Amino acid sequence: MTSTDTQIKLSLVEFLELPETEPASEYINGKVYHKPMPKGRHSTLQVRLSASINQVYLPQQIAHAFTELRCTFGGRSIVPDISVFEWSRLPFNDEGEIEDSFEISPDWVIEILSPEQHDARVIEKIIFCLNHGTKLGWLIDSKARLVIIFKPQQQPEVKQDSDSLPILDVLADWQLSAADLFGWLNVKRR
Amino acid sequence: MTSTDTQIKLSLVEFLELPETEPASEYINGKVYHKPMPKGRHSTLQVRLSASINQVYLPQQIAHAFTELRCTFGGRSIVPDISVFEWSRLPFNDEGEIEDSFEISPDWVIEILSPEQHDARVIEKIIFCLNHGTKLGWLIDSKARLVIIFKPQQQPEVKQDSDSLPILDVLADWQLSAADLFGWLNVKRR
Repeated sequence: MTSTDTQIKLSLVEFLELPETEPASEYINGKVYHKPMPKGRHSTLQVRLSASINQVYLPQQIAHAFTELRCTFGGRSIVPDISVFEWSRLPFNDEGEIEDSFEISPDWVIEILSPEQHDARVIEKIIFCLNHGTKLGWLIDSKARLVIIFKPQQQPEVKQDSDSLPILDVLADWQLSAADLFGWLNVKRR
Repeated sequence: MTSTDTQIKLSLVEFLELPETEPASEYINGKVYHKPMPKGRHSTLQVRLSASINQVYLPQQIAHAFTELRCTFGGRSIVPDISVFEWSRLPFNDEGEIEDSFEISPDWVIEILSPEQHDARVIEKIIFCLNHGTKLGWLIDSKARLVIIFKPQQQPEVKQDSDSLPILDVLADWQLSAADLFGWLNVKRR
């Protein structure tokens, strides 16, 4: 999110009636914030991580990872970089398809710091999710090669190098270290 | 801290023998990081907040706030923007003066985000302090007007606007809201 927030205060209903923007806008405490345009490293981690989660857990119908999914809950409308839902909480329509509109908090929220993201708003967003039912938050800093792990009612933990990254309990058999994650950035030309 | 870390790995003892730099350098996991040069808003908050704490608690010999004090503990040598020590933990020399060298963790550590600073390393630094005896950490974002509060074994809390900012238990009678803190930035010319 950048600080180029619009000056006019809107209601959540009014915000949701606006056309979607690219990159997405988020509605937080009556204000609209524009997410930064993702850069190479950000996109790489976002696409690789979500694909890895889905590769293992989608076929088993255990969990579903989404990128840039709008989630509206607790009076806000946010668009996490990655949001993961346990299968049992996925909203389906009458045709058995996943609903377009998610009005629940993700079980696991992943935010990847962008170079121009200099503020504590990202941390605030993760804490907001924890206060509204999210069980796990990751804050990924690809420059510092750190992942900060947030869980409800717990002190955050720092993971780096060969540290194993904590995942949702339902995903128990998946293993990923911080080094594995940041290794995805080292895609060399052949 | 910036990422312009020196490439040569040093021991803590070797690092401490180097001359001090301006702004200060920090020694973390075998690497040297240079703190960013403080800017106007950063300096304002740093000087006003430390002065306010000392004005109340120094005469009573309850606590002492320092700016840019080198603290060496847990295998690191860090220089928090503000570090606050309860009086009983202050190191004194034989002449009854405060020691030059602090080899203990602060009771309260305050970091003020600089525009060029990456969040995750600052959070990591606060979490390191909590894991080494620090009772309270503040992460101040003057751009977003947020203060993130860290305590050992607890989920961080977000404070803004009229929210009262949690302080050390020994400082119980002091009251400061997020609005009071950020109000210090609105020093208008007469």
